[in-house]
Amino acid sequence: MEHKFEEKLQLLPGNELELRLGKVVAAMTQADIDGVLVSDNANLFYLTGRIFCGYIYVGRDSMIRYFLRRPSVLTGADVHRIRKPEDMATLLADLVNADTNVGFTVDDTPYSTIQRLCKAIGSPRIANGSAVLRAARSVKTPMEVKLIVDSGMRLSDIYRRLPHLYREGMTDIELQIEIERVLRLHGCLGKFPVSGPELEIFMGNVLTGDNADAPSPYDFAMGGAGLGPSLPVGANGTVIRPGKPVMVDMNANFDGYLADSTRCYITGDCPEEARRANELSRRICEAIADAARPGMEARKMYELALSMVVEAGMTDFFMGHRSHAGFVGHGIGITVNELPVLAPRSRDVFAAGNVIAVEPKFVLPGIGAVGIENSYEIMAEGPARRLTDAPEDISSLD
Amino acid sequence: MEHKFEEKLQLLPGNELELRLGKVVAAMTQADIDGVLVSDNANLFYLTGRIFCGYIYVGRDSMIRYFLRRPSVLTGADVHRIRKPEDMATLLADLVNADTNVGFTVDDTPYSTIQRLCKAIGSPRIANGSAVLRAARSVKTPMEVKLIVDSGMRLSDIYRRLPHLYREGMTDIELQIEIERVLRLHGCLGKFPVSGPELEIFMGNVLTGDNADAPSPYDFAMGGAGLGPSLPVGANGTVIRPGKPVMVDMNANFDGYLADSTRCYITGDCPEEARRANELSRRICEAIADAARPGMEARKMYELALSMVVEAGMTDFFMGHRSHAGFVGHGIGITVNELPVLAPRSRDVFAAGNVIAVEPKFVLPGIGAVGIENSYEIMAEGPARRLTDAPEDISSLD
Repeated sequence: MEHKFEEKLQLLPGNELELRLGKVVAAMTQADIDGVLVSDNANLFYLTGRIFCGYIYVGRDSMIRYFLRRPSVLTGADVHRIRKPEDMATLLADLVNADTNVGFTVDDTPYSTIQRLCKAIGSPRIANGSAVLRAARSVKTPMEVKLIVDSGMRLSDIYRRLPHLYREGMTDIELQIEIERVLRLHGCLGKFPVSGPELEIFMGNVLTGDNADAPSPYDFAMGGAGLGPSLPVGANGTVIRPGKPVMVDMNANFDGYLADSTRCYITGDCPEEARRANELSRRICEAIADAARPGMEARKMYELALSMVVEAGMTDFFMGHRSHAGFVGHGIGITVNELPVLAPRSRDVFAAGNVIAVEPKFVLPGIGAVGIENSYEIMAEGPARRLTDAPEDISSLD
Repeated sequence: MEHKFEEKLQLLPGNELELRLGKVVAAMTQADIDGVLVSDNANLFYLTGRIFCGYIYVGRDSMIRYFLRRPSVLTGADVHRIRKPEDMATLLADLVNADTNVGFTVDDTPYSTIQRLCKAIGSPRIANGSAVLRAARSVKTPMEVKLIVDSGMRLSDIYRRLPHLYREGMTDIELQIEIERVLRLHGCLGKFPVSGPELEIFMGNVLTGDNADAPSPYDFAMGGAGLGPSLPVGANGTVIRPGKPVMVDMNANFDGYLADSTRCYITGDCPEEARRANELSRRICEAIADAARPGMEARKMYELALSMVVEAGMTDFFMGHRSHAGFVGHGIGITVNELPVLAPRSRDVFAAGNVIAVEPKFVLPGIGAVGIENSYEIMAEGPARRLTDAPEDISSLD
């Protein structure tokens, strides 16, 4: 009676799969790629709605084949059970040969795995399939936007109630752990998906006081020394003091799709500089949301932010103080660092359906980090739609 | 006054670095590799005691050069600041050319990154530097063992007190969240380092009832359906019921080095089958610890376990029921899946200083998962030393 355990591998509704395949094939055509062999978890999830151990081949004609290693209970049309990559050879022999241009997920899969996969399917020319999927994924379907909206609402609800988690004398990490617990109890999966193996983060960042100015190896907007040299980012055990803002930027992965939002909190009186910088951050977010339109270059948004920062005389504190992050926003979705990137040298151009996080942040020496982050959807017409709606002022913890 | 922020990049004491370099160079020599260019976080941490953004080159003569991208505040002998990989070219021109055999971390770094790094340093022949570092890291230094012992003690303390976290009516995930919180409050970094990009897990696994029998895509000893298809492993919201064991296998990363241990708990009466299977697991652990000696093949330990399982008539339930994991133990250290591997086709041979987790587990249909897991150090003489010492019987939650 093994069949009673069977489960469909493909979890996406037919029209949703069609939408996603359409985007992938469009990007393949533009890159002159004949097929894409997907081997990383994020892209397997994008194309099926689940993570499994195996591979997916997508042809330029939208044909899709699934090669399943584990778990063996998954079934469906075009699902081929394999024990090892080499078992794909005969199953792809009609599609792949030494003259085919196959996109592999070269930015997301180790060198040795790609080499083996390439040989296993007949040694085609290796093209950049990661770039194809990155381009496709940068424009969300309505279903994807809905999942991000849902994650954003859940995170915003927790940000609203966050002052209830604070007790006098807490350290940054103690407050973070209570937020982690509430996030988890509300369904957060914990896993914080990031593209690329270098960026590591646990459940997000809670930064207060001087720790906000500790440079980290990771290319996140804000640093922090972290709890140790094997994960040097975020909270470091600093006691939360009156007049020192607490910046909270936590993981909102509730369903495989991330929203991204930051809010600041304070106990005691809020220094005027902190309030002003937070207000500037809020105004930059608003200006970017007002200006962002399909067809616009993403780097223009960085320039817009920078011009407001320069006018306010806040350049030295923008996106860090001792070290500066070189962007003001980024795409979000299955991972926290997708396209488009809002950075000076970005070549990305906005399209309707992009979902971005905008995070103009400031580090004020002797005070700490302030600023907000919201997630937005780029609309076909009109301003970008805000997806994260907790109050934007620095909230009192008292 | 920028210099007051300076910090040494190399955190390992001189003799410790020497020990580790000795192992790396021995493995390089055996593989006939001229140098290794390290580009993944786990191996950067192994060679410096910290994670930074950059690369390390180790020559066959134990010469070591550090190439630092971020954070810029790190300094020290042989630390070269670079902005991009190509800046290494001149700095390595005396050591690397088209005829050199350079080991890259090909199992741990994306294809496109390795390609760029290779070109950047003069297009040497690409050898498997991951294998070199895996071999070196499989034999721990006394300092590394001490860090694992410390993680094991902290995890075991929490396992001892775990029944205090249980409240009647809790689900598996609710209990797991309370364990996560206590782990974090005791200094657990949260990050659960795994080699390779495919295996994903959050803070560990709490499995109860039939969920223990849900096959997962990941090659962990036990599965579980998880909270959703984007992280299909572990707790799935099953209510903890009397007579159904709860298997707890949580993350013990307190300092960059992992211990690994599993214990089982139960509310109400413990079924006799569960008690017997748990006792068999305990006896297998003991037998393996008693038998393990340097020079012994790791696969023999799997055979030893299997022979005891066969004798007990428990083959159908060993390492899973609907699907079976093909090992009974694995090396641990900076990541949870190191060498040696205790599996039927493993070619690994034990050496003094190996640290392994042994986890003979059983899934009993209608009951759930039982079995224990301990971490052990392979000693130069005598039985392996147990590093995790919470009580091994199924503990009552009541």
